[in-house]
Amino acid sequence: MNFASILYILGTLMEVEGALFLAPAVVSLFYRESEGFVYFGIALICALTGRLITLKKVSKPLYYAKEGFISVAMGWIIMSVVGCIPFVITGEIPDFIDALFETVSGFTTTGSSILSDVESLSHCSLFWRSFSHWIGGMGVFVFILAILPKTGAQNMHLLRSESPGPDVGKLVPKLGDSAKILYIIYFGMTVIQMVILLITGMPLFDSITLTFGTAGTGGFGIKNSSIADYTYLQQMIISVFMLLFGVNFNFYFFILIRHSIKEAFSMEEVRAYFAVVIASTLIIMHNAKGMFASTSDAFGKALFQVSSIITTTGYSTADFNEWPALSKTILVCLMFVGACAGSTGGGFKISRLIIMAKAYIRELMHFIHPRLVKNIYMDKRKIKDEMVSGVAVYLVSYVLVLLISLLVISLDGFDLETNFTAVMATLNNIGPGLSVVGPTGNFNSYSTVSKLVLTFDMLAGRLELYPMLLLFSPGTWRRK
Amino acid sequence: MNFASILYILGTLMEVEGALFLAPAVVSLFYRESEGFVYFGIALICALTGRLITLKKVSKPLYYAKEGFISVAMGWIIMSVVGCIPFVITGEIPDFIDALFETVSGFTTTGSSILSDVESLSHCSLFWRSFSHWIGGMGVFVFILAILPKTGAQNMHLLRSESPGPDVGKLVPKLGDSAKILYIIYFGMTVIQMVILLITGMPLFDSITLTFGTAGTGGFGIKNSSIADYTYLQQMIISVFMLLFGVNFNFYFFILIRHSIKEAFSMEEVRAYFAVVIASTLIIMHNAKGMFASTSDAFGKALFQVSSIITTTGYSTADFNEWPALSKTILVCLMFVGACAGSTGGGFKISRLIIMAKAYIRELMHFIHPRLVKNIYMDKRKIKDEMVSGVAVYLVSYVLVLLISLLVISLDGFDLETNFTAVMATLNNIGPGLSVVGPTGNFNSYSTVSKLVLTFDMLAGRLELYPMLLLFSPGTWRRK
Repeated sequence: MNFASILYILGTLMEVEGALFLAPAVVSLFYRESEGFVYFGIALICALTGRLITLKKVSKPLYYAKEGFISVAMGWIIMSVVGCIPFVITGEIPDFIDALFETVSGFTTTGSSILSDVESLSHCSLFWRSFSHWIGGMGVFVFILAILPKTGAQNMHLLRSESPGPDVGKLVPKLGDSAKILYIIYFGMTVIQMVILLITGMPLFDSITLTFGTAGTGGFGIKNSSIADYTYLQQMIISVFMLLFGVNFNFYFFILIRHSIKEAFSMEEVRAYFAVVIASTLIIMHNAKGMFASTSDAFGKALFQVSSIITTTGYSTADFNEWPALSKTILVCLMFVGACAGSTGGGFKISRLIIMAKAYIRELMHFIHPRLVKNIYMDKRKIKDEMVSGVAVYLVSYVLVLLISLLVISLDGFDLETNFTAVMATLNNIGPGLSVVGPTGNFNSYSTVSKLVLTFDMLAGRLELYPMLLLFSPGTWRRK
Repeated sequence: MNFASILYILGTLMEVEGALFLAPAVVSLFYRESEGFVYFGIALICALTGRLITLKKVSKPLYYAKEGFISVAMGWIIMSVVGCIPFVITGEIPDFIDALFETVSGFTTTGSSILSDVESLSHCSLFWRSFSHWIGGMGVFVFILAILPKTGAQNMHLLRSESPGPDVGKLVPKLGDSAKILYIIYFGMTVIQMVILLITGMPLFDSITLTFGTAGTGGFGIKNSSIADYTYLQQMIISVFMLLFGVNFNFYFFILIRHSIKEAFSMEEVRAYFAVVIASTLIIMHNAKGMFASTSDAFGKALFQVSSIITTTGYSTADFNEWPALSKTILVCLMFVGACAGSTGGGFKISRLIIMAKAYIRELMHFIHPRLVKNIYMDKRKIKDEMVSGVAVYLVSYVLVLLISLLVISLDGFDLETNFTAVMATLNNIGPGLSVVGPTGNFNSYSTVSKLVLTFDMLAGRLELYPMLLLFSPGTWRRK
């Protein structure tokens, strides 16, 4: 293991986080909040520590698979531990484990909260909470790759460890340029949503924070009622942007850089994603129609919740815990499905489901016509057997983490629906679950041990399991 | 598709079922029950129909993969439809769908019931219900292969479609002999359990029917309280035999025919199976200790329920729906795990889990040491990549059937815990689930559509998905 390279990138990360702390600090100036001093202070300490670490230049930092995974896993943990300090010092979330849960929930774009009254937080802390979604959405290592002057192709593994999906490709030959393009699209779409929300008359602070939560598919709101008290138009705009941020970013790359709308819309993953959204919305509209005042209300609430859950954002406009069984079951299924690969959303990812479905049909066909062995394709590219087994092993890891987490948090004695959806909501980076952890509840009733397990699940879900599993695997640290 | 061969084996099946109907008919003579006439009549009609079909000899019946799957799937459906007729005619279960559900539950060794008062059934119907477990446990096609005079190796596919597990091997070179050995072990163990139960003072009728339910890992009881009213000793005996019937039958083959105890106990699957049973029992004993009168009571109830669920039998001695969350979660996990391959138990099977676990560890190792590609072994035999991807695709099919069933039965409006465990309990051939379908409840509250879906799940679970999925797949019936 190349420890010098790992230390160097972690130092860079601290410098970046120090700079990011300045944003809530500046917000505090507008609202004249004393909590701002805490953010200023931590920004300074964080940046200086990072600078000290990176003083010792590493001649040629290299991140192969192992170093990439470990750097990213450790980086996310350090970033979260540092990121939760302001909550503890300001006394807004005095318990360290609670503050860590909330911060990890922010960076991993989960949006699960232990707070029952978010409106009591200061503006700068509300801003930091939502801003962490935006930072975590596209990924902080992707950001570092975008700003580092020279990024060799071997650092691909850093990108791969942080970006979601079974097959993370480079958009353009140079890795740093790919990272830059991703951030430019991300930044551009964020600004557009913010401006549109402002035009509808939403206050500036709300527009900025809610857009951060949408863009990162996070889900932290700034009101106890989440999004329910905004206008129908504003809710629809957020619905649409949640869906847009859940689309594979290659889609925008094809449209904006390659100017090929045909190529963009021929992406199988994007088509499947929209098909699932439309079907789920229509079924829920019909199944839960008794809960809504009118058809347009039904459409608005159903679309919002489907978009919110499939993109793993977690905003809510209605207490879907009260919806009929079929609608709730669909939402639980969508929790698992998740958004497109290469988006800011979490979950298992549509593309993995497509690969599994195709491998599955091939296997069935194999029974009927044993001599007919067919290759399977996605977007006209052949899917290698390695990738199929990779996806399968990913599914197994996923089920494994799910079951072990479920068993541990069961010790707290909540019902199966609460426990199961609590793990689903954190592991898939969604936010609210059902029952006790439903949209009107929160995660505070769980014990410290359960909170730590769910914190692990959020990180494991955001980094797609392997970095976190490897970090805690004895084989990683054993000398050969 | 070779329709003549399929028709021929289905005719043979009818003849066999006709003979089997004689057993409850004879029982009715002892108890002087008029329902016996129904069983006699159906036995006659069934056997005659079968004879008529098989009159036209097929010169050389061949069952390749496709014919094997289709014969077995159709055979099980026909056997169940015919098997439920006595319940309808005697008026004991007047509704056809209910009677079908109950009969499929019998043959597939599920043990889920729509009856709230089993004690009101006639003795011959109770006998038929339990006897169907015994028939379905080892499989009726395996029985046909054992009695058919000459069975070519190409008929392997019939055995493969009906026997559980990822890799069904022949025990001895001749297929018919393998089937015979399986049935001899099965029959022998059944007799031993029956005799032991008789010695403890259990009435003959109870001994026979409960042994049928244990041997087939079925779970239909003859009392409303399932096994709760029998003595502690009798419960322990049933616990032990449930476990024994959940062991891979190769284990007994090694001990009894090859006289190699060492070979038997070196089977990884058997060792993992007992490890899971012991660990689960100890955890539940500790977690649910408040529910039990004494340590021996705790041990007895915990072991009984763990054995009953992991072997997918479904007998109960306690209302485990009232146990604490962790214990219930463990039981739900065991529902999925299931028994050993090559046993009469259902579920995903321990050996599939072992294969997945090994492939999973290899994948993780691959991240750490990319140049180290290792083969994986089970019982010193190399596991081919094909088998790993086969198991993975099986898992996907399983999740797919689970989710679609869950969505459809959700329409009835029960809670998620009820619906989820109802599908788990039927798809894994267990019997009771939790909440509404818990050990003190039954499946009668579900709508007709849901009952049909759960009936499909029971058949799909018993035949390990593919035969049922192929039967309903349009590709199977399309001419090339």
